[in-house]
Amino acid sequence: MTLQKTREQNYPEWYQNVITVADMAENSSSPGCMVIKPWGYGIWERMQRVLDDMIKDTGHDNCYFPMFIPLSFFQKEAEHVDGFAKEMAVVTHSRLKSVEGKLTPDSPLEEPLIIRPTSETIIADSFSKWVKSYRDLPLMINQWANVVRWEMRPRLFLRTREFLWQEGHTAHSTYEEAEKEAQTMLDVYARFSREALAMPVLTGKKPEFDKFPGAVDTYCIEAMMQDGKALQAGTSHFLGQNFAKSANIKFQSSQGTQEYAYTTSWGVSTRLIGGLIMTHGDDEGMVVPPVVAPHQIVIVPLLKDKTKNEEVLAYAQKLKSALATVSFKGERVRVKLDDRQKESVDKMWEWTRKGTPLVIEVGPRDVQNNGLMVRDRTKINLKEWKEIVSFDSFVSSASARLENIQNSLLKQAEDRLNKNIKSDIQTPEEFEKYFSNQNVFVEGEKEKVSFVRGKWCGDNDIEEKLKSMKINIRCIPFEQSGTEGVCLITGKPATLDVIYARSY
Amino acid sequence: MTLQKTREQNYPEWYQNVITVADMAENSSSPGCMVIKPWGYGIWERMQRVLDDMIKDTGHDNCYFPMFIPLSFFQKEAEHVDGFAKEMAVVTHSRLKSVEGKLTPDSPLEEPLIIRPTSETIIADSFSKWVKSYRDLPLMINQWANVVRWEMRPRLFLRTREFLWQEGHTAHSTYEEAEKEAQTMLDVYARFSREALAMPVLTGKKPEFDKFPGAVDTYCIEAMMQDGKALQAGTSHFLGQNFAKSANIKFQSSQGTQEYAYTTSWGVSTRLIGGLIMTHGDDEGMVVPPVVAPHQIVIVPLLKDKTKNEEVLAYAQKLKSALATVSFKGERVRVKLDDRQKESVDKMWEWTRKGTPLVIEVGPRDVQNNGLMVRDRTKINLKEWKEIVSFDSFVSSASARLENIQNSLLKQAEDRLNKNIKSDIQTPEEFEKYFSNQNVFVEGEKEKVSFVRGKWCGDNDIEEKLKSMKINIRCIPFEQSGTEGVCLITGKPATLDVIYARSY
Repeated sequence: MTLQKTREQNYPEWYQNVITVADMAENSSSPGCMVIKPWGYGIWERMQRVLDDMIKDTGHDNCYFPMFIPLSFFQKEAEHVDGFAKEMAVVTHSRLKSVEGKLTPDSPLEEPLIIRPTSETIIADSFSKWVKSYRDLPLMINQWANVVRWEMRPRLFLRTREFLWQEGHTAHSTYEEAEKEAQTMLDVYARFSREALAMPVLTGKKPEFDKFPGAVDTYCIEAMMQDGKALQAGTSHFLGQNFAKSANIKFQSSQGTQEYAYTTSWGVSTRLIGGLIMTHGDDEGMVVPPVVAPHQIVIVPLLKDKTKNEEVLAYAQKLKSALATVSFKGERVRVKLDDRQKESVDKMWEWTRKGTPLVIEVGPRDVQNNGLMVRDRTKINLKEWKEIVSFDSFVSSASARLENIQNSLLKQAEDRLNKNIKSDIQTPEEFEKYFSNQNVFVEGEKEKVSFVRGKWCGDNDIEEKLKSMKINIRCIPFEQSGTEGVCLITGKPATLDVIYARSY
Repeated sequence: MTLQKTREQNYPEWYQNVITVADMAENSSSPGCMVIKPWGYGIWERMQRVLDDMIKDTGHDNCYFPMFIPLSFFQKEAEHVDGFAKEMAVVTHSRLKSVEGKLTPDSPLEEPLIIRPTSETIIADSFSKWVKSYRDLPLMINQWANVVRWEMRPRLFLRTREFLWQEGHTAHSTYEEAEKEAQTMLDVYARFSREALAMPVLTGKKPEFDKFPGAVDTYCIEAMMQDGKALQAGTSHFLGQNFAKSANIKFQSSQGTQEYAYTTSWGVSTRLIGGLIMTHGDDEGMVVPPVVAPHQIVIVPLLKDKTKNEEVLAYAQKLKSALATVSFKGERVRVKLDDRQKESVDKMWEWTRKGTPLVIEVGPRDVQNNGLMVRDRTKINLKEWKEIVSFDSFVSSASARLENIQNSLLKQAEDRLNKNIKSDIQTPEEFEKYFSNQNVFVEGEKEKVSFVRGKWCGDNDIEEKLKSMKINIRCIPFEQSGTEGVCLITGKPATLDVIYARSY
């Protein structure tokens, strides 16, 4: 199975094609939900492992909170629920009964339950019981969970009704400490995204009108996809005392007074897999950075000559064992020997389309010459894609090769990000003209419609205008130039630098 | 906080007390659901890590399937849903609206969705799309997920409306291969339970009337709790072609004919944490086997003399670093240095009640003598509980000490299991008399009401009788004596050996 569309021909179709040819996920018979298949889930497991270590290293413990939230909890936090578009799954019955052979809901609940779209309300309820004194603070927890938002136009990984994520929730005794926590976790996300996913991001704050409902400030990481659109890859919220007040998270301060705590929350989701596809995928399929690749190296034995199959398999096994001693970034290299009864050329292409960093072929001739054929996924369009090397030199270079692949993927994505932030638009007219172009994927030379770094006056009533242009303010970067200019939306004098873009 | 009840005084209250003093979980404001707190969740994470490796080593890949199952899927599998007591959470609406300031369910769904009580039906639906040819088989997957069963009498870890588990699902081309898979996974569970949880189990088959709805055979592992009751700790189902037929999982055989696949499913859940508590906990609190302990060693520095705190902390840190080089069962030893500003005696007891295998105290005198105080959790009632040893000898013996603890917990549980299976009851009268006693926890000498190994005639209409005696048949052990005797329920001639017991 090859890709039906290239990125240039049809970017959205290409995206779906990559997921199909890499066999990562598919739409389920359960409306709007996805099935995450082994290769997609394997990537998620790698992401979880790396990020979970970072979350624990910054002092957080994992917990698990119920997915059912009583309706009244949302009632309490009015601003929160207003902002949430209210598209949520509601459980109203706790039983099925059979009526003339047909199953029907039975036993209505006294109070309907909402399946968590995010867990601030239910976790704040626990926090209110756990926090009594300043000595109980900071309280820093995280959970890995499924959440539900009733998306009307679902898209694999990017927008599905149910998705998987982690959500961190913390409570602190001071404003400053909580604000710092929200920033620290944003930094963790930016570092994770860069170091594990080879996906550089811009960091900043959301404008007032686009904050998380109930937050004082929402920080975000924004990545640039290959078609020039932005993907919000993670958010971190400084919630001030808003949730503490509605859930009554109070503590006795060291001076003996009763105070409300300051809370934060932050999360990233399986959406990152969508980001990974649109950052690194190419017209052959998926490309997975080694750090999050379920298998970093796949060995495909060429089993065409039955008289030699046994020695080829033994040689492949010997290679696998030799690689078991190799480590990459402090962990054993993940190697798979694919000995399925299948055409080896098909197997090679299967692993290539899945984006395996290194695919190794070994055949009867290699056994004789003590060699092997390496295919480096990132070099598929270059002359050096296929390389014949000796057994020993491959084993001793395997770690460095993975390192190179990880670095080259990061560099490619960084170059793209750096090259495609347009910062010379001065007036609303130029700005409107720029974004009137359709977004198309362009490889290489031609400029594509992408990110604009320009001025904003700070007015919050520009949402309609942005909507009509199909763009939005992705973030207010932490690094500001301080120069004066003209707001690209209203034409008013403005000093704030923001990032404008189309987005997923 | 100490335990309010000993096991002997009130076993159910003791169980709740242990969970509280070890701070493992609590009831949530979300009715019937639990919050799993860091220590409880940390144990679950360790269980997951060990079992996940075993599941992958036996050839299974992890996936993720939707938690929403369309109602019609249950309608298809009539036997399955009949058996399920129909106590399920039903989603009927996808929106909230505000009516006079009050949130109310809105947008009724065309088809209600059930939150998975188990995923056979939705996974079979995917399998039916994935399987075309015998070459696609076996298909062997697993998922870690939350599931919901509307329990009316919830109990932390043992029975909550939402709980966490793994569920494996496989499809095979032959009856024999599928049946063997179901047995293989039961063996994995038994080994995991024994080696990781230090919880020996009996293995066998469920009687016909107590099988999983839709299964040809249900295999199970049964553990004996300290009060003599049984806990079903895991099940593995050979489903024959039942689910394949209702979901249409068909494949072309190597002879070119169309055949239905044979499927299996198997799972263990957070219930195992309940089993762990009731297997190893004592009147001081929790006892966690080292293999699944979040921290295997906790260092508590004695910080009473401010002039010496710095050197004590440095010494504690040095110990932590030295222990970082120690490995236990192929992994780094998990060590925590508890430097919180809190009375050290309180900290020591906190970690003791949580069941930390080794708690180490270091104070100013130890710094001088290059020593430390070890507390071995399993020796709390013995003279050797506290032991002063030198720094170096502790570091070099740490791994062996953990090994000893793991082994001694297993041995204790094994002795209990071996000693408390009564196999000399010959008649229904003796049997009824035996179970007419109340189940009470008895330490040591006196016999307690526990497991009976005795005959069953095989009649399936004995459920009412068992119910009236508040017992059931836990399993038909794989190892049968083949002797002839009298059914302990009906008095008929019988050859089948079964395990009768009260249960959780």
